[in-house]
Amino acid sequence: MEKTAQYIQKIGNDLWLTEDERQNLKISYRVKEVLFSKSSPFQHVMILDSYDFGRMLVLDGVVQTTSIDGHIYNEMISHVPLSIHPNPQKVLIIGGGDCGVAREVCKYPNVKEIDMVEIDELVVKACKEYLPEVSGNLSDPRVNFLFIDGVKYAAEKENEYDVIIVDSSDPVGPAEQLFSKEFYVNLHRALKEDGLMVCQSQSPIFHLDVLKQSYSHLASLFPITKLYTAVVPTYPGGMWSFTIGSNKYENIHVSNFSKETKYVNQDILEGCFKLPEFLQNALIDL
Amino acid sequence: MEKTAQYIQKIGNDLWLTEDERQNLKISYRVKEVLFSKSSPFQHVMILDSYDFGRMLVLDGVVQTTSIDGHIYNEMISHVPLSIHPNPQKVLIIGGGDCGVAREVCKYPNVKEIDMVEIDELVVKACKEYLPEVSGNLSDPRVNFLFIDGVKYAAEKENEYDVIIVDSSDPVGPAEQLFSKEFYVNLHRALKEDGLMVCQSQSPIFHLDVLKQSYSHLASLFPITKLYTAVVPTYPGGMWSFTIGSNKYENIHVSNFSKETKYVNQDILEGCFKLPEFLQNALIDL
Repeated sequence: MEKTAQYIQKIGNDLWLTEDERQNLKISYRVKEVLFSKSSPFQHVMILDSYDFGRMLVLDGVVQTTSIDGHIYNEMISHVPLSIHPNPQKVLIIGGGDCGVAREVCKYPNVKEIDMVEIDELVVKACKEYLPEVSGNLSDPRVNFLFIDGVKYAAEKENEYDVIIVDSSDPVGPAEQLFSKEFYVNLHRALKEDGLMVCQSQSPIFHLDVLKQSYSHLASLFPITKLYTAVVPTYPGGMWSFTIGSNKYENIHVSNFSKETKYVNQDILEGCFKLPEFLQNALIDL
Repeated sequence: MEKTAQYIQKIGNDLWLTEDERQNLKISYRVKEVLFSKSSPFQHVMILDSYDFGRMLVLDGVVQTTSIDGHIYNEMISHVPLSIHPNPQKVLIIGGGDCGVAREVCKYPNVKEIDMVEIDELVVKACKEYLPEVSGNLSDPRVNFLFIDGVKYAAEKENEYDVIIVDSSDPVGPAEQLFSKEFYVNLHRALKEDGLMVCQSQSPIFHLDVLKQSYSHLASLFPITKLYTAVVPTYPGGMWSFTIGSNKYENIHVSNFSKETKYVNQDILEGCFKLPEFLQNALIDL
């Protein structure tokens, strides 16, 4: 627990985690207990039990996912692309160490293989043991864990996947390359002729530049590019964006969504592409 | 500026506002300058210039609205009801001291009278002078400012308004009564036979109990009750809810929304009623 003290302060009798990666905004969470704290070769990994958000995965001091709202992000980045592709059989997940995306993809019986490429095995271990609300204690035999660099992995694949889901953290540290044009070029090559991909493209409020860059990269590679949003309470700005690049399929083909979910339903699948005025304007000319 | 020091801390060379009204979550905003700080008979009123959110209205140390996202809330609580009522002529706003709702309502030429009942004149004065990005420096002659208790005002009116907008702060302090059943009964009486009302009904994530209570109250009074949501980045949980109680009109009648707005458009008017699964489930049996 050597680096715990860098991130967790004791104030009176209370423990607090303060996220201060942003220069002008600090968010502090009151914490019941530090359940796990260890450094990997890539980053510092903690699982905390918090008062308002339940258990949380914290990487380098920044909250990544929580028991209270982790399902929103994981359901949205999974069920939207899987409701557009009519027959996804082979799925690649890049990142997604909390295992929540893999858990959602496993709800599709027609999916035969799920390659999950996460650079940091320690994140997966910690989430499987201490964050079952998000990871679901994943033991589905279709999931093939590969603890290697997703950027290198993608560069070696061709015409192999129906759907690729890029579940990255913010574009700093280990995830920086997951927002580069070269990476998207490789993903495009790794997809089958009728394949599609989705990536998280950050907050439309605070990272509109990143969003526009991701959208532009995908728009230059795919005939179909679509942006959708969801509300993720623990991410700055509340509103979060996802961008789809697709070779062939464009619309939600599901007419009666019936997976067991807490956030996604038929209304959300259809409504999530309806963008506010400032965001529609931001995409013009990209 | 007697109470400023209670809310604003100097850390090194920087000023910070820390919202700590919640027991387990603190949000701190780096502040450039305190532009206004004064106590009214009802609350402490500040206008701050912040780094990430521009100018902000802060009541009793809690951020109410900001230059960067205040328009989202104000557009959503105004244009949705005014796009459902086919001919709103007389509108009552209760609360709304930042004047942003009145500003949006003024965009409707068929509206002849806007009674704005705000208990705290100091909020209006401060916002008109220091927060023009939100208040719009309102000078429309159709707006009739009444600096009196909205609860008492509503109790004396009958069959008078086409649309009532309740733009309250949180259900603590001066706004507590704006969430009571008795208040809604009075608003129902103050509406014309085909009138409708809307209130902000807090965060579906953190205040689901308040949301359900507001919804139940309105459902017991009106034949039509509808919930919709928007993303308001500076409110806890990001997702915010609004509840409509309507005597007659149910659906958006506008087919080509064209007011000058930054958030609301035709897509948002139609999409905002599409609720996530947990929220649809929460409203069953209310």
